[in-house]
Amino acid sequence: MTQDAVTKRGPGRPRGFSAQETRERLITVARSHFAKSGFAGASLRAIGAEAGVDASLIRYHFGDKSGLLVATMELPVNPAEILQKVIAQGPEGMGERLVRAFLTSWDPHAEVFSAMIRTALTSGDPQQAPGLQVAQQIVIAALRQVLDGDDRLLRAELIAAQIIGMALLRYVVQLAPLASASIDEVVAIYGPAIQAAVDRS
Amino acid sequence: MTQDAVTKRGPGRPRGFSAQETRERLITVARSHFAKSGFAGASLRAIGAEAGVDASLIRYHFGDKSGLLVATMELPVNPAEILQKVIAQGPEGMGERLVRAFLTSWDPHAEVFSAMIRTALTSGDPQQAPGLQVAQQIVIAALRQVLDGDDRLLRAELIAAQIIGMALLRYVVQLAPLASASIDEVVAIYGPAIQAAVDRS
Repeated sequence: MTQDAVTKRGPGRPRGFSAQETRERLITVARSHFAKSGFAGASLRAIGAEAGVDASLIRYHFGDKSGLLVATMELPVNPAEILQKVIAQGPEGMGERLVRAFLTSWDPHAEVFSAMIRTALTSGDPQQAPGLQVAQQIVIAALRQVLDGDDRLLRAELIAAQIIGMALLRYVVQLAPLASASIDEVVAIYGPAIQAAVDRS
Repeated sequence: MTQDAVTKRGPGRPRGFSAQETRERLITVARSHFAKSGFAGASLRAIGAEAGVDASLIRYHFGDKSGLLVATMELPVNPAEILQKVIAQGPEGMGERLVRAFLTSWDPHAEVFSAMIRTALTSGDPQQAPGLQVAQQIVIAALRQVLDGDDRLLRAELIAAQIIGMALLRYVVQLAPLASASIDEVVAIYGPAIQAAVDRS
C-alpha cells in the first residue's frame, strides 16, 4: 500500500483525521490502556473504540499488540523484531546471537534503555511499567517459542534476567570495564552463560 | 574481648560516649561520606576524625570499610561474609553455590533488596548509590579473588549482572514463575549459567 493510498479515507479511519493524527491518537489511548490494564489486559477493540477507529486500523498501523506497545514507548528499536531474527535460527548458538543482537541494537541508545529501566522501577507497580511489560510479554514470549521442556518459561525469565542485569550494569550503572568492553568481549563470556540457560539442564 | 571490656573507655573512644553511641555516630558520619565520596573515595581516617574517634575503633566495630558500608545500609545480611564462604571452596561448582547462598540469604528479605535496588536506581548518580557500591566493591572484589585470566574483572561484573538481574525479576518485578520458583529450581538452571562465566571461556 502506498502512502497515497493511506491518506485516502478508508472504512476504519474517522472522518476529518489524517493517518498521522489517527496513529498519534491511537498511541495516546493505548498508552493509558496499557498503564491501567497491563499488556495482557489491554484490548485492541477497546483501544480502537475509545480512539473512534476500527481495531483493524491498529493492525494496519502497528502490526499487533506488541507493535502498539513499542510505539507507545517510542523505543528506538523493536525488541520483538530483533528477537524474531535471533530465535529464527533455533536454540543452537542462541546465547551468543542474543547478546550480540541486544548490544548491537541498544549500545547506540544506552540513555533510552537507562531511562526505561529507571522509569519502570520507580513507578508504583513495576509489573505494570511499560519497560517491564516488554520484558515480560515480548521477550519472554519469544524466548519460550525456542525453548523445550516443562521449565521453559522459568528458563526464559532467567535469560531475560541475564540480559537485563547486564544492561543495567553496562548502561545504567556504567560499571567499568563492562561499560566500555567491546561487543565481542561481552559476547565471548556472556554468550555461553546465556546458552547454559537455553540448553536443557 | 568481652562486652565488659568494650564498655570501659579505651584510647580511641571519645569521653562521655558509650560504645553503642560511638558506633551509631560512626555510622551516621560514614553514611554521609559514602554518599559524598563513594566507597573508594571515602577515608576511614576522615570518617574517624569527623566522628572524633581513632580509625582503629572503626576496625574494631566494623572490621573494614566494607563492614562499615554494610552497617550504614542496615542490611539484614552481610554480602561480604556470604561471599567469602562461597569462594573459599574455589571456582568448581561456584555458580551453584553462589545462587544458592544468595537466594537463601535474600529470599527472607526480598523487600529490603527491592528497596535497595530502587533507591540505587533513583538516586542522581547510580555509581554513588550505596546499594550498587556494594555490588561494585564487595561482590566484584570477592569474585575476582577466585577468577583467573586477564578478563577476570569483566567476568566478575557479568556474574554480578546475572545475580542482580535475577534478583530484580524475582524480588522487585516479582515475575511469575521466577518469583515463586523454589531455590532448587532456580539453582538447577542458573547455577550452570553463572558457572559458564566463572570458567575461562
